[in-house]
Amino acid sequence: MGSPAFIAGDWGTTHLRLALCDTDGEVLRGASGPGVAQVQGDFEATLAALTEPWLREHGSLPTILCGMVGSTIGWQNVPYVACPSRPTQIASAMTRIADRDVFIAPGLTCRNRHESPDVMRGEETQILGALRLQPELSGGTRFLCLPGTHTKWAVLENGVVRDFVTSVTGELFAIIRQHSVLVRTDEVTDNGAAFDAAIDQVNRYQHASLSHLLFECRSRQLMSGLSPADAAHYLSGLLIADDVASALRMYRGTTTGPGITLIGAPSLTALYARVLAARSIEHAQIDGAQASLSGLTALHSLLQTRH
Amino acid sequence: MGSPAFIAGDWGTTHLRLALCDTDGEVLRGASGPGVAQVQGDFEATLAALTEPWLREHGSLPTILCGMVGSTIGWQNVPYVACPSRPTQIASAMTRIADRDVFIAPGLTCRNRHESPDVMRGEETQILGALRLQPELSGGTRFLCLPGTHTKWAVLENGVVRDFVTSVTGELFAIIRQHSVLVRTDEVTDNGAAFDAAIDQVNRYQHASLSHLLFECRSRQLMSGLSPADAAHYLSGLLIADDVASALRMYRGTTTGPGITLIGAPSLTALYARVLAARSIEHAQIDGAQASLSGLTALHSLLQTRH
Repeated sequence: MGSPAFIAGDWGTTHLRLALCDTDGEVLRGASGPGVAQVQGDFEATLAALTEPWLREHGSLPTILCGMVGSTIGWQNVPYVACPSRPTQIASAMTRIADRDVFIAPGLTCRNRHESPDVMRGEETQILGALRLQPELSGGTRFLCLPGTHTKWAVLENGVVRDFVTSVTGELFAIIRQHSVLVRTDEVTDNGAAFDAAIDQVNRYQHASLSHLLFECRSRQLMSGLSPADAAHYLSGLLIADDVASALRMYRGTTTGPGITLIGAPSLTALYARVLAARSIEHAQIDGAQASLSGLTALHSLLQTRH
Repeated sequence: MGSPAFIAGDWGTTHLRLALCDTDGEVLRGASGPGVAQVQGDFEATLAALTEPWLREHGSLPTILCGMVGSTIGWQNVPYVACPSRPTQIASAMTRIADRDVFIAPGLTCRNRHESPDVMRGEETQILGALRLQPELSGGTRFLCLPGTHTKWAVLENGVVRDFVTSVTGELFAIIRQHSVLVRTDEVTDNGAAFDAAIDQVNRYQHASLSHLLFECRSRQLMSGLSPADAAHYLSGLLIADDVASALRMYRGTTTGPGITLIGAPSLTALYARVLAARSIEHAQIDGAQASLSGLTALHSLLQTRH
């Protein structure tokens, strides 16, 4: 393990995850703080309070940040880089906070396959990190799925992000679970059977919109003895299976030869993996936190080259 | 206008709409009260407080109720009638509240076209009413759409409700508008252009799931100058156009010859009509409140026959 070289920060809407790293991205210390939406105006003070002990011990170090911290609701708005884009291009588009050794990565924008504008912030750094962790992803056409509140489906061609599309699967799950009459429970159980039944239902009735299937979460409770806790799993299965089915229809005609690489929280990529397995589609999983850290490490190296 | 013959009550989750009617369903007096979810336990007292002046003036009259008042969260649970069912069958399955001149209509249940249980409560009375208002609906195969929080798409064959499916379009609109980051506005404007743009988008990309299109409500605000108020119209257009597209795929192969009959609040059926017009599909609109009243009137007549 080397000496401290930089501070990596994944600063999203709801969390800040900081790490003191060596040049290879090995984590020497870690800390966590408030998300962008929780910070009361002063990003600098929030960051300083968390990194001050490290800087006092090791002297001045650059800080590399990614995520919503670079948005209009963040510390400083960093313009999006337009696709097609090689993830390393992000490095040269990083914005430096004036008079500070702090750099913020830009997000990506594209015209997606539905001829609409699309955006990501944070996932571009995870993609860069995935390419560093698994260099073989730079060859040929690759499909990436980054599940989350807003899931991103991205196409990589020879290491270039060609385009991507956002699905609101995670957000729909959260707001339906919290605010709808369809599923009313706080209970969390592990019921793969209800999840799998929902996968089957989506795969059997691919012509049916999500809005024509979601009521089953309630009607199966009323008429078929589905428990409230299982209804939440059924909901999750409907949403994720529908998300996957829509993505596969979108990619139709493009070979998904090497399968799909899932990048995200392991508990979430496992659910997508379960849907892909049910469709016999090859897939691999990369931990999203590791991908972020690896991407921030790559950005730090590229920054050294730039100077 | 005849003399008072009965009291009609459409008692849903959020509203109670009462009318003092003659035998033809002409409204002599009207009143409104709390929905099933608002009543604090005592349905009898709630009803009595509203009808007491009428009963005092005109003597004893039967009260015919439909809607969620007949559910597990209502006054008394009235079992569903199974489809295929002729709407007049509802009359013989009405439940009488013990020792009271109050009758509650049952809902309908079916195995829908996605092989799942489905239910309706209140809409069956509207369908009965629509058949009374427009007897020609009893001939051939007819498609009904009853938009609302939970929209019902029903197939009538020679006056028999064969099956139906529920879409959660109205509820999704409400919870996304209130709780999602996609659309944040309380402003209400009349922008048909944003609604129509969403219809076009759904019709152009029918392979795309709703969850892959909804993010456009946000990305078009960020990147294409869509205003927050217009984003709400765009959201509405996406949801309703997707609902219609899914219903038409479901009915594929079945002739929609005479078009689709929309039954509901005029402001809502107008939006569905706009989507159907964009697809050159014939349609007609029936006011949902009139359909309910007409259905309750039919139930009253059938009740007289039964005795």
